[in-house]
Amino acid sequence: MSLDRLSLNQITTRSWSLAEAVRGCAEAGVPAIGLWRDKVAEAGGGARAAKLVREAGLTVSSLCRGGFLTAADPAGRRAALEDNLRAIEEAATLGTDTLVLVVGGLPEGSRDLPGARARVAELIAELAPHAGAAGVRLAIEPLHPMFCADRAVVSTLGQALDLAEPHPAGQVGVVVDAYHVWWDPALPEQIARAGRGGRIAAYQVCDWTLPLPADALLGRGHVGDGHIDLRALTTLVAAAGHTGWIEVEIFNETIWAAPGHETLATVLARHHLLFPPASPHDR
Amino acid sequence: MSLDRLSLNQITTRSWSLAEAVRGCAEAGVPAIGLWRDKVAEAGGGARAAKLVREAGLTVSSLCRGGFLTAADPAGRRAALEDNLRAIEEAATLGTDTLVLVVGGLPEGSRDLPGARARVAELIAELAPHAGAAGVRLAIEPLHPMFCADRAVVSTLGQALDLAEPHPAGQVGVVVDAYHVWWDPALPEQIARAGRGGRIAAYQVCDWTLPLPADALLGRGHVGDGHIDLRALTTLVAAAGHTGWIEVEIFNETIWAAPGHETLATVLARHHLLFPPASPHDR
Repeated sequence: MSLDRLSLNQITTRSWSLAEAVRGCAEAGVPAIGLWRDKVAEAGGGARAAKLVREAGLTVSSLCRGGFLTAADPAGRRAALEDNLRAIEEAATLGTDTLVLVVGGLPEGSRDLPGARARVAELIAELAPHAGAAGVRLAIEPLHPMFCADRAVVSTLGQALDLAEPHPAGQVGVVVDAYHVWWDPALPEQIARAGRGGRIAAYQVCDWTLPLPADALLGRGHVGDGHIDLRALTTLVAAAGHTGWIEVEIFNETIWAAPGHETLATVLARHHLLFPPASPHDR
Repeated sequence: MSLDRLSLNQITTRSWSLAEAVRGCAEAGVPAIGLWRDKVAEAGGGARAAKLVREAGLTVSSLCRGGFLTAADPAGRRAALEDNLRAIEEAATLGTDTLVLVVGGLPEGSRDLPGARARVAELIAELAPHAGAAGVRLAIEPLHPMFCADRAVVSTLGQALDLAEPHPAGQVGVVVDAYHVWWDPALPEQIARAGRGGRIAAYQVCDWTLPLPADALLGRGHVGDGHIDLRALTTLVAAAGHTGWIEVEIFNETIWAAPGHETLATVLARHHLLFPPASPHDR
């Protein structure tokens, strides 16, 4: 199985520093890596991280993450705008065109979900031209509805597209993350819609495993270990025209406790499960 | 605050037997109760339970639950049909017109979500006329998407309505359960759609509290303790024409460990939070 579209989101090998993850990918033949801002900061900032990645011959598939746009007070709103402008700049420095946005949950004590959603739309409108000017695309990530209260009031791909479509496709796209969207009965038509509009900024995979742990954020499994038909999903995303990276992003304490090389080896070993079985003469 | 539309779903006071829950409701002035089949069985079956409820002057708002319709093998399918026919009969015996259906998750080892969903549609089509003949309505309950793999492949109100609408409104309706649907960006239009079609068979409330416990089934809170704008939701459901019961259904180990009378007192004390604040001259 060719690895030419595989990207390792570095959270998957969380115990690794950025330098270690870059080296691990290069040695394993993984051509791309998704970076996190905290790891970039630890590595000495965007310019140094970019140099590390470039010298290893890798591509940065995405930067995680901007967002958290739901603050209701002017100070919180201003802070969010400033932080996202910095994130846009950092993405540009790293040479990636994709800044993943986790939009944020309800502000402390608030039950006003429509209000929080409206503020996300407003701040994306403010940020989009800045992203475009920097050659970066805001990639709105719908999170699983179980994170609606505390992490992301954008809960479906259709809703993310509603937020993206008022803006040029080069400025605002969406993330299709298997873990967050696999359950959605509207998924096939929304993936097709995203493809028609050129809005698929990132495709991320991992599996839905049970039971959910106490911290539901950390319940994701390696491709093939859970309940998602990832082959069917990858086929849908490909049919929608996505030819870009397939980023493996796993949040899981047990996987994080394993040595990075072991985790990466499992990622590689499972990659073929995303594609139709090879016909005998392909072997 | 009038209690005239309040129903206690008996799972909320799980430590109580059916007889105790009936007595508790009657003493507290709660006019209706939602029953569970295991509790009905413990009470000696449908006829005896019906007599207990009737003698206390209560109404049975719903019976929980039928469903689990996703088996792929003929034996599993037959068993599901038979069990649901018994549940329909039990609902009729209890004098309720509402049988709540939790449709079931993916069969063991299967990742075929569209297949499971198609089987739900097929079995509902088989069951609907039997329900209608018994004067019982199948109430399809969309469960929160976090239960898609293991409990219910019906994850949104829109999807539940898609399943219900091929059948007469008297045979198949939907459950609007705040916990399961509150996050849905399409909720206002789907509730309006349900109302227009006369499809709201049950309205259930509780709150979304954080953090989620290890068993996500058991993370529900009393009205007012969490993140859902239950007043806004109740207003939407009322605007859609629902004048029926408001059933309080809470799954929570801590609440279950409390004495039934205490839990019921909290349910009563919170009920006013579902409605617009009274104007001064209503007091």
